[in-house]
Amino acid sequence: MAGGTITLSTNTQRALINITDEINKICHKQQISSGIIYLVNPHTTAGLTINEGADPNVCKDIIAGLEKIVPRLNYQHMEGNSPAHIMTLLTGSSLTVHVDQGKLLLGTWQQIFFCEFDGPRNRQIRWRYIADQP
Amino acid sequence: MAGGTITLSTNTQRALINITDEINKICHKQQISSGIIYLVNPHTTAGLTINEGADPNVCKDIIAGLEKIVPRLNYQHMEGNSPAHIMTLLTGSSLTVHVDQGKLLLGTWQQIFFCEFDGPRNRQIRWRYIADQP
Amino acid sequence: MAGGTITLSTNTQRALINITDEINKICHKQQISSGIIYLVNPHTTAGLTINEGADPNVCKDIIAGLEKIVPRLNYQHMEGNSPAHIMTLLTGSSLTVHVDQGKLLLGTWQQIFFCEFDGPRNRQIRWRYIADQP
Repeated sequence: MAGGTITLSTNTQRALINITDEINKICHKQQISSGIIYLVNPHTTAGLTINEGADPNVCKDIIAGLEKIVPRLNYQHMEGNSPAHIMTLLTGSSLTVHVDQGKLLLGTWQQIFFCEFDGPRNRQIRWRYIADQP
Repeated sequence: MAGGTITLSTNTQRALINITDEINKICHKQQISSGIIYLVNPHTTAGLTINEGADPNVCKDIIAGLEKIVPRLNYQHMEGNSPAHIMTLLTGSSLTVHVDQGKLLLGTWQQIFFCEFDGPRNRQIRWRYIADQP
Repeated sequence: MAGGTITLSTNTQRALINITDEINKICHKQQISSGIIYLVNPHTTAGLTINEGADPNVCKDIIAGLEKIVPRLNYQHMEGNSPAHIMTLLTGSSLTVHVDQGKLLLGTWQQIFFCEFDGPRNRQIRWRYIADQP
């Protein structure tokens, strides 16, 4: 089973960052042909999601929506980033993507996004691959 | 690794549609005995989830809850369906279900649902299967 | 493919319960070395998530946040626990965790939590393991 780590630096407190090209490059470099790639986010104030990549406004709307959804309470966690921890729960920390003929099997409008909820920070994404059984 | 696509047509803007029987039929047809079935939704305004299937009111309550949770903002995405994109992030796009002795290993009350958030539309669900290692 | 069930009893209506040690014990007992462990929650009013385990206030803040996020509506499901079903959708029912050298490959602050949304109850978590291909 092949595996590795991608690193990225985020520039703002909250943003969805398109990582589809980087994951496709891994498939190409590793000569991954057909199977499943697992993406894991090792952070507790960030997430991974699949959503529309054609119009960048969708990502902005998602961040604006999440900021309204998560309430501003008198949270007990002293670091002050409890809303980011809650956004991580809502988004989820891992993705399972099918690979066919060396390419990610995504829908027409789907792209893979790293979700920064408490940046700017240096972040990692871990990947692991299971090939199809012959 | 076996794999394929299910198609379905949704009739309303938002609904949870029980697809458990169809996934069980796939297990039966493909003579899937023991392993893991991965379900993937290739759409960005729809999701996949597992929840209670006994009382259909639970699905209605979930839709009513999501419509309250996602705020009505002055979204920038011109297509007007940003709430559906946010519901997709909240729900998630894929499921991992265990299979034992040819049947989906679900809890007593669990059923698998396709979540339409921007219908009516023609939709797909992709599945892929990894058998247990001998 | 190895697999099994963990049982736990919850004491309150809502809480995040750290199950990381128990999952690590499974890895040790089963001599799981390198691969992927799948955790599945068979309940419809409970979830599984990965978040910060260092400060227990984070878990409390997450529960407080979810209780504000899910609205108190005039729900139709007569059992009265529709908010718990909605929290289950928001959280998700399964986790995919990488295992390396016999240990869960988690981030520095990450721990695995069972999310009780409608307790106290007796609960189960099912696990299944796929070893790395040689």
